[in-house]
Amino acid sequence: MPRYRLTVAYLGTGFAGWQRQPGVRTVQGELEDALERIAGGAVRVVGAGRTDAGVHAAGQVVHLDLAPEIPPHGLRRALNAALPADLRVRAASRARPDFHARHDAVGKRYTYRMRWRPPDLPWDGLRWAVVPAPSRWEAMEAAAAALTGRIDAASFTVPDHGRAGTVRTVHRLRIRRLPWGAIVEVEGDGFLRYQVRRMVGTLLEVGWGRRTPAEVATLVERPRPGAPVLTAPARGLTLEAVRYRRTAVVDSDAQG
Amino acid sequence: MPRYRLTVAYLGTGFAGWQRQPGVRTVQGELEDALERIAGGAVRVVGAGRTDAGVHAAGQVVHLDLAPEIPPHGLRRALNAALPADLRVRAASRARPDFHARHDAVGKRYTYRMRWRPPDLPWDGLRWAVVPAPSRWEAMEAAAAALTGRIDAASFTVPDHGRAGTVRTVHRLRIRRLPWGAIVEVEGDGFLRYQVRRMVGTLLEVGWGRRTPAEVATLVERPRPGAPVLTAPARGLTLEAVRYRRTAVVDSDAQG
Repeated sequence: MPRYRLTVAYLGTGFAGWQRQPGVRTVQGELEDALERIAGGAVRVVGAGRTDAGVHAAGQVVHLDLAPEIPPHGLRRALNAALPADLRVRAASRARPDFHARHDAVGKRYTYRMRWRPPDLPWDGLRWAVVPAPSRWEAMEAAAAALTGRIDAASFTVPDHGRAGTVRTVHRLRIRRLPWGAIVEVEGDGFLRYQVRRMVGTLLEVGWGRRTPAEVATLVERPRPGAPVLTAPARGLTLEAVRYRRTAVVDSDAQG
Repeated sequence: MPRYRLTVAYLGTGFAGWQRQPGVRTVQGELEDALERIAGGAVRVVGAGRTDAGVHAAGQVVHLDLAPEIPPHGLRRALNAALPADLRVRAASRARPDFHARHDAVGKRYTYRMRWRPPDLPWDGLRWAVVPAPSRWEAMEAAAAALTGRIDAASFTVPDHGRAGTVRTVHRLRIRRLPWGAIVEVEGDGFLRYQVRRMVGTLLEVGWGRRTPAEVATLVERPRPGAPVLTAPARGLTLEAVRYRRTAVVDSDAQG
């Protein structure tokens, strides 16, 4: 069966996360239901990252096998006609038969958006968390430096994270200040469950003066899952892009 | 019991409309559930307009009675803390005991947003309908003129609209062209069910060359409910504001 690769974007507000669950609206569930209507039989999709409830994506990557061979641009068009407005297919391509969206991913990029006051209109704030304004920006920068590089990230996940190793490389952790908020850009080879939101929450605690950069360094040096750090709200987080080593694309339909 | 007036905004994407229904997420349902958690007992809210599934609001107005007297700013704050991100209270005030959000409304303003191509990212297009680009703009203007003023709007509703009269005054029906879409601004003393979406759909049919302005004038002169006109998609429609004759406000908390 031909394998396809899709790049999908979604507003997480209306989804109970990525993973299919009975009785709730999930991204995987909506994608599989739409594919079933198109293909006339059950289709399973595998996503690069199982985003939590409320988390958004601009560039989630998925793979799937489809019995009737459909040109990628036709598949994208049919899916976008069948999918709800808050879930879109940005690109579709044929992939090698052994391409795996999750196992083959070598990097992910996230952004975390925060503002100090809620916006007046709901559609202006759906991808922004509202948090108290931090004041110690230099300490936050120092803490961000302590969280960058090859680190044991166990303190930034939960005990039953379900993965063997907890060492990850954070290539970049950059804080961009705005007049009324900030955007944190995070790039790495992979992230444990809640890792990005718990790293951002830790930075906020430093910015509020509740924790020192030295304490953050200790969280990295003496890692323990479930350490009492703040998990920043889901609605500020967007999975921006997933990176793969070599192009697994056979026949591309980038955008149209 | 003190009566309150709220101005609420919502993104209609995740709601099955205004009116409370069992088993689905509605604006009235979410508001009443949040109020029940705050007041500790059932609270009923009455909205100025019962927007359909998928329709948005920037300035819906509601009234409600609340047994424990709460300062308006406290009520707004408590509600915004309890409500989901896609439903916000923009303002709260005390109202006269006989203020009625629906019966006292003397005018409503809507906008209809349309674009010719879907946006790349879902959060850019949630309040925009995607429709084929019209080409006959002058004919659309002529049709808009035929729909303006005191008209029998029966052709633009459905047979069981549930209201006695079908004569309404459209004060303004303006088409603003954009490079990649258009915004239709509609203002009137009140609208029948589907009236705005069916007027916009009719304008589009004229713009596509499927209907002439003279045929639109006939729809007004010989009104018949359920006339075969296009109903423009719900997602393009936003209830912008509701107008009242005199201020029914006792103690205001406009914005903060």
